[in-house]
Amino acid sequence: MTYSERATKFTNKVARELFEIVERKKTNLALALDVTTKQEFLNITDSVGPYICCLKTHIDILVDFDDELIEQLKRLQAKHSFLIFEDRKFADIGNTVKHQYSQGIYKISEWADIIDAHSLPGDGIVSGLKEVGLPLGRGLLLLAEMSSKGSLATGSYTDATVEMAQRHKDFVIGFIAGRKLLMNDDFVTMTPGVGLDVTKDGLGQQYRTPRDVILESGSDIIIVGRGIYGSGKDVIAEARRYRDVGWNAYEERIGKK
Amino acid sequence: MTYSERATKFTNKVARELFEIVERKKTNLALALDVTTKQEFLNITDSVGPYICCLKTHIDILVDFDDELIEQLKRLQAKHSFLIFEDRKFADIGNTVKHQYSQGIYKISEWADIIDAHSLPGDGIVSGLKEVGLPLGRGLLLLAEMSSKGSLATGSYTDATVEMAQRHKDFVIGFIAGRKLLMNDDFVTMTPGVGLDVTKDGLGQQYRTPRDVILESGSDIIIVGRGIYGSGKDVIAEARRYRDVGWNAYEERIGKK
Repeated sequence: MTYSERATKFTNKVARELFEIVERKKTNLALALDVTTKQEFLNITDSVGPYICCLKTHIDILVDFDDELIEQLKRLQAKHSFLIFEDRKFADIGNTVKHQYSQGIYKISEWADIIDAHSLPGDGIVSGLKEVGLPLGRGLLLLAEMSSKGSLATGSYTDATVEMAQRHKDFVIGFIAGRKLLMNDDFVTMTPGVGLDVTKDGLGQQYRTPRDVILESGSDIIIVGRGIYGSGKDVIAEARRYRDVGWNAYEERIGKK
Repeated sequence: MTYSERATKFTNKVARELFEIVERKKTNLALALDVTTKQEFLNITDSVGPYICCLKTHIDILVDFDDELIEQLKRLQAKHSFLIFEDRKFADIGNTVKHQYSQGIYKISEWADIIDAHSLPGDGIVSGLKEVGLPLGRGLLLLAEMSSKGSLATGSYTDATVEMAQRHKDFVIGFIAGRKLLMNDDFVTMTPGVGLDVTKDGLGQQYRTPRDVILESGSDIIIVGRGIYGSGKDVIAEARRYRDVGWNAYEERIGKK
């Protein structure tokens, strides 16, 4: 099924927007932007913006974060058209994540279209986040699998996560996972740990290729980080390269190639 | 075994300090301080400080956090003698948590004696945190069980978490769990979801009594939050009450009562 066809199937606004952007910009590339200064953050976002459907942030690693950054980020979002996914990996009980999502310095619910959470604490984590996010038109991804070595998010853990998502389809738009987990097309699948040139880092991260992820494993969105802006990289050239490889794999999957 | 005897068994400095404070102040109470303003945060900490061994924080829910707060918190720590446990529940790959722990606005590694993490991503999460925390003399708790309804941290997940801790005994000082998980006394057990007056909240949290946790389940530290500073509570009276009930349960366990 094409991204456009998929877009129409969601009741959740953010999920529809995501696939509309993917189809319009012809990119299933999400940038995982793990830098620690505003300057780098904004420069790379502006450079890579035309080639991505989604910007994945870790807002809490920026040493000079301030409210102005959010304003600048929103301007770049309007300029380039991408969704913002704060990869907070919420992992606490419902009452706590509700505060972490809406309060504090970062006020994530005010600017992040998409957030993610671990299913580990049980349904309360989804209920807590939903209380905040659903009225704001946000969407949640559940972490069903992880790309790191020795991850415990496998087997029955993954199955329980899928069941949890199905109980909260109004707010849970999909999964962080290595592969499409359900036969139906009701959920978005985003896959991290994607790289063309290396297979691991020194702290347990493992990389797979965009073609493997999109074509073989049926995922929807590739998440690429250090492969694009790592030391010595030409970020625009790398972003185009990943966009092209990811899109070609998609066209091959739907039979256009 | 007494807290003092336990203290001598640890190579990790923070674990030793924790049990020394517990014994000296005769309290196994940790306060879970989930408030959203500096003023409340500091007022409650100063009031409850004499009765606790550990202050558990969610620094990222404070709407008016600034560097001055950390200075004020450190002054209260020196005044009352307790350890600071930032309940960040790190839950990402090693390279990311390393940044989340040391960078950003909060610079958690600079002021938190103890942090916690989910074992879910695999050993890389411990390795990443250890790179930052071990040289600073910090300690890590792994979440082996959770107190919320429908938690997936059970069975083989809990077992794998215990095994992970045993592979990293220099930095992992113990567990967040509902009960003592190993026959030996090599790890600290801290138990959240403790309350005397209620059994649940509206978002899946479930409460047990201090006596149940310390005496029946063999845990070391009770973590109490809304039971102490919830609406209409006399925080000093409640802190004393939980301290007394927790300590009596401990004395009963070691046969002094």
